[in-house]
Amino acid sequence: MNPNVPFRGIIAYPITPFTADSAVDLPTYRHLVERLVASGSHGIAPLGSTGVLPYLTDEERDAVAEATMQQVAGRVPVLVGVSHLTTAGAVRHARFAEQAGAAGVMVIPMSYWKLTDDEIFRHFDRVASAISVPIMAYNNPATGGLDMSPTLLKRLLEIPNVTMIKESSGDVQRMQALRQLLGEDVAFYNGSNPLALAAFAAGATGWCTAAPNLIPELNLGLYKAVQRQNLGEARQLFYQQFELLQFIVAKGLPRAIKAGLELQGQPAGELRAPLQPLTETEQQELRRILNRVPQEVAVS
Amino acid sequence: MNPNVPFRGIIAYPITPFTADSAVDLPTYRHLVERLVASGSHGIAPLGSTGVLPYLTDEERDAVAEATMQQVAGRVPVLVGVSHLTTAGAVRHARFAEQAGAAGVMVIPMSYWKLTDDEIFRHFDRVASAISVPIMAYNNPATGGLDMSPTLLKRLLEIPNVTMIKESSGDVQRMQALRQLLGEDVAFYNGSNPLALAAFAAGATGWCTAAPNLIPELNLGLYKAVQRQNLGEARQLFYQQFELLQFIVAKGLPRAIKAGLELQGQPAGELRAPLQPLTETEQQELRRILNRVPQEVAVS
Amino acid sequence: MNPNVPFRGIIAYPITPFTADSAVDLPTYRHLVERLVASGSHGIAPLGSTGVLPYLTDEERDAVAEATMQQVAGRVPVLVGVSHLTTAGAVRHARFAEQAGAAGVMVIPMSYWKLTDDEIFRHFDRVASAISVPIMAYNNPATGGLDMSPTLLKRLLEIPNVTMIKESSGDVQRMQALRQLLGEDVAFYNGSNPLALAAFAAGATGWCTAAPNLIPELNLGLYKAVQRQNLGEARQLFYQQFELLQFIVAKGLPRAIKAGLELQGQPAGELRAPLQPLTETEQQELRRILNRVPQEVAVS
Amino acid sequence: MNPNVPFRGIIAYPITPFTADSAVDLPTYRHLVERLVASGSHGIAPLGSTGVLPYLTDEERDAVAEATMQQVAGRVPVLVGVSHLTTAGAVRHARFAEQAGAAGVMVIPMSYWKLTDDEIFRHFDRVASAISVPIMAYNNPATGGLDMSPTLLKRLLEIPNVTMIKESSGDVQRMQALRQLLGEDVAFYNGSNPLALAAFAAGATGWCTAAPNLIPELNLGLYKAVQRQNLGEARQLFYQQFELLQFIVAKGLPRAIKAGLELQGQPAGELRAPLQPLTETEQQELRRILNRVPQEVAVS
Repeated sequence: MNPNVPFRGIIAYPITPFTADSAVDLPTYRHLVERLVASGSHGIAPLGSTGVLPYLTDEERDAVAEATMQQVAGRVPVLVGVSHLTTAGAVRHARFAEQAGAAGVMVIPMSYWKLTDDEIFRHFDRVASAISVPIMAYNNPATGGLDMSPTLLKRLLEIPNVTMIKESSGDVQRMQALRQLLGEDVAFYNGSNPLALAAFAAGATGWCTAAPNLIPELNLGLYKAVQRQNLGEARQLFYQQFELLQFIVAKGLPRAIKAGLELQGQPAGELRAPLQPLTETEQQELRRILNRVPQEVAVS
Repeated sequence: MNPNVPFRGIIAYPITPFTADSAVDLPTYRHLVERLVASGSHGIAPLGSTGVLPYLTDEERDAVAEATMQQVAGRVPVLVGVSHLTTAGAVRHARFAEQAGAAGVMVIPMSYWKLTDDEIFRHFDRVASAISVPIMAYNNPATGGLDMSPTLLKRLLEIPNVTMIKESSGDVQRMQALRQLLGEDVAFYNGSNPLALAAFAAGATGWCTAAPNLIPELNLGLYKAVQRQNLGEARQLFYQQFELLQFIVAKGLPRAIKAGLELQGQPAGELRAPLQPLTETEQQELRRILNRVPQEVAVS
Repeated sequence: MNPNVPFRGIIAYPITPFTADSAVDLPTYRHLVERLVASGSHGIAPLGSTGVLPYLTDEERDAVAEATMQQVAGRVPVLVGVSHLTTAGAVRHARFAEQAGAAGVMVIPMSYWKLTDDEIFRHFDRVASAISVPIMAYNNPATGGLDMSPTLLKRLLEIPNVTMIKESSGDVQRMQALRQLLGEDVAFYNGSNPLALAAFAAGATGWCTAAPNLIPELNLGLYKAVQRQNLGEARQLFYQQFELLQFIVAKGLPRAIKAGLELQGQPAGELRAPLQPLTETEQQELRRILNRVPQEVAVS
Repeated sequence: MNPNVPFRGIIAYPITPFTADSAVDLPTYRHLVERLVASGSHGIAPLGSTGVLPYLTDEERDAVAEATMQQVAGRVPVLVGVSHLTTAGAVRHARFAEQAGAAGVMVIPMSYWKLTDDEIFRHFDRVASAISVPIMAYNNPATGGLDMSPTLLKRLLEIPNVTMIKESSGDVQRMQALRQLLGEDVAFYNGSNPLALAAFAAGATGWCTAAPNLIPELNLGLYKAVQRQNLGEARQLFYQQFELLQFIVAKGLPRAIKAGLELQGQPAGELRAPLQPLTETEQQELRRILNRVPQEVAVS
């Protein structure tokens, strides 16, 4: 594998579980990471939106990054989220991740005040200069508050170790425009769960998703059908998981994944306030959806 | 073919050309329709947005519908646009289309005042009761001014001869939700050109498009690759046409198709004011894009 | 009054009532116009959105324009809506309105295909060249489908007989930007009912509204308080009518005004399909709102 | 003054200046606070968006809150921003502010994951329970990422010490709806600078603004004209400052205020990365706008 583009396929996002007194519950976290590796994910991505990165202190983020490395132990590459509102904070976390052994880091230009394109470029440039591992630039207007245009993303790719793009704007045309603009060698990743099929059809290198916490076989099956270029099988596997993908996005990934894990009999810890568990009604809806998911995935 | 769902594949939309004094130019129109049939389109759809339906008088619409029937002469099914702001107007045009020999009619609930779901249902119900041929319900918030939810579309399908749905909201998740809600037997059609690949991946029965006026081989090649479930080939053919699809949507289909036809040496008539030709700069951009389109489409 | 800017204050929009067989009910229409004049409106505006202009045939539009002139009989100036999707249609209706005696005409650049700024300018220029009476350029993205920027509106005002602007984008900042850009002599009119107070505060010359069909005293009272620059009184009168203004906008003006007239014991005719009457529940809500409106308006 | 509603009029927001090595520059900060008090502001609001609250560490926030109290020294009430992504963080900062002597605290439910109404209510309830001073609930979808409906805001006001609402959604209808829903005794504050006139016309108790850093006389003059219910004078004063208000919002308050202070010969420190200074062109535009602002404000 190209060391500058160390991720492909199913890149799985663990949640960050908390104890009853709202400390990070590292033993449970490591259990959840182990499940993701064991079930076949091609990469592990701690400290993403799913891992409630923005709600963690600097020290908690360090602890989660280290625990991931120890648990994964080199079996698959690890992509550490290092986003921070300040440039200095992002640099600090990127350096820590590199030293801890991350194969790459993910940076979303978080925004309180809308940043100009020049401010965003400078932010990435300073983070990139501080480390040697490759960076995945992450566009997610809904959570990050900023929408990076294909043109800006192209500019970011001129920074030597910015080599990957994750698109979560929810519009498949954006991914297509990226590939049109950047050529078919660009490594772009899909972060919108309900667009998994469309993104793979458009040529995505990988799918960044929290779904393998609940349905790893279906996620991996879809990717394998795409690798075989078998559209019919890919479509069938996609619709078997589409309802669940819609649900976990609609309810918020940390809340929905926690509820799903508990329905599957797994420990999932507590959420950190202000996040609250799904309501009873939402949990019942999730149970019905999970019950409709095929127990075994028949892949040719 | 199921007579209730008489359309599949590439459903081609001709423009409506005008003479210098702004009359409908029927001879040029018939020439353009002939090209679409001869190049292999699976259906012809006069009086759509591309055909500037809302800018035509009742008499002009009748004349265009009849000219289409005569020119197509039964070689492929014809889908006539019969949308009208008033219910009485839509009924009148639907009856005319049926008598003229249309295999189906397309109805978009045009809106000046936003219609309630009940008003939309009643509108479709009255049109459907007045004819026997099947109806394609067309959702296009950008031009029609109304966004019909998947739930409303499901309700419309309870009307016996509403059997097809055309989605042009530009969001592939809407098509996926339709199929999720309605089952895999529902016939949905994609009306968003840049979503052609994603829509076929999602299971669309056909693609309603003006692009065959300019690049019929690529359009048909994509559909054939999809029929063979060959994702890699479909992707390759899609990206060969994606830039042109983006351009014709961005500039408005009637203006862009007219300019493209003229660049290809075809007569295309005049536009009706207030629509004006593309600027010089836009025409040059279109020329560059058309020059980049492969001359021959290699399909396995 | 400046003959180039013949409108100020409360410009009242009648609905267009229909008979049971969906013909325009001219006697009822004239009765409704008479009420608007008798209750003190400063101008009458037939064939607006309220008057369901887009749902009328050319002949019906002529008949409504003529009936308005005859009924008003010069007591107040009349502003005739002449919008049409085609430029030729707008020219035809503008000429008719001028000959019938309109003090001005209102033109919204209706859109099916999004028009470029040049197409919009040319549309206005051709209508303006065909008549001598002043034109009110009308911006209403929600119904017209096009949003004219302050810059484009400034350009339109360079056409000699385009002298007035009606803003219905629902954003008071747009009106403020117009006045900033055009100077305090520009005549701009508010078409967003719930913004009546904010628009007058921003310096609007008049308020284009269907509300005088139901609550003329409150509408006129607000205008008079503004003329006296009495902010406290204006605010008080505004909040007495705000709930009704919100309701009629939320439900659609023709439907809501018809229901309100009937609750007040006035004839209001039928709506033309696809428009349908308010539901029972909506009518009860309207009754409660009308009951809360003060019976007498105490103006200093 | 009602101790539960300790703010009215012009509530001024200082920026937070930084030293060359990105530490908070407290001496410069205190100088800027002194100017705001000396020029007549009715309240001071540290640690708002203008003060780049989200980019500060917990310790820096404490230091800024304390410095404000010391500098203001009881001359006017102080409103301390205590927002934090986690509930525990917001509680911690609210307690600190109360102990430091804040007359009230401002809470915006910051969001990474969209919060449900119940999550937001619980967040406010826990902060409110931890302190005795009144809370201003702040709605700003553009920076906070969440839009609190008038209905939710009404519910928040049921918490005893949530007594004030600041609306920055940019839509004056929202403020009007609040007053309609909550009665004329509700204390709502406008946080959208370009809506200052419309908000006061609608009955706002105060204006939360960074503009007094640059043009305190105009800001205060507008408020005084409104207090005298003189609409004509209020309108005149508003348009004298409208262009500047638009500029500082368009460019981001911290960046624009810093540039304006420097143009006025005041020390303003550095920004914290990723925020960067205005470009040369933007600074020249700001200079032109400031030059057009009247040197003296003639208030009757």
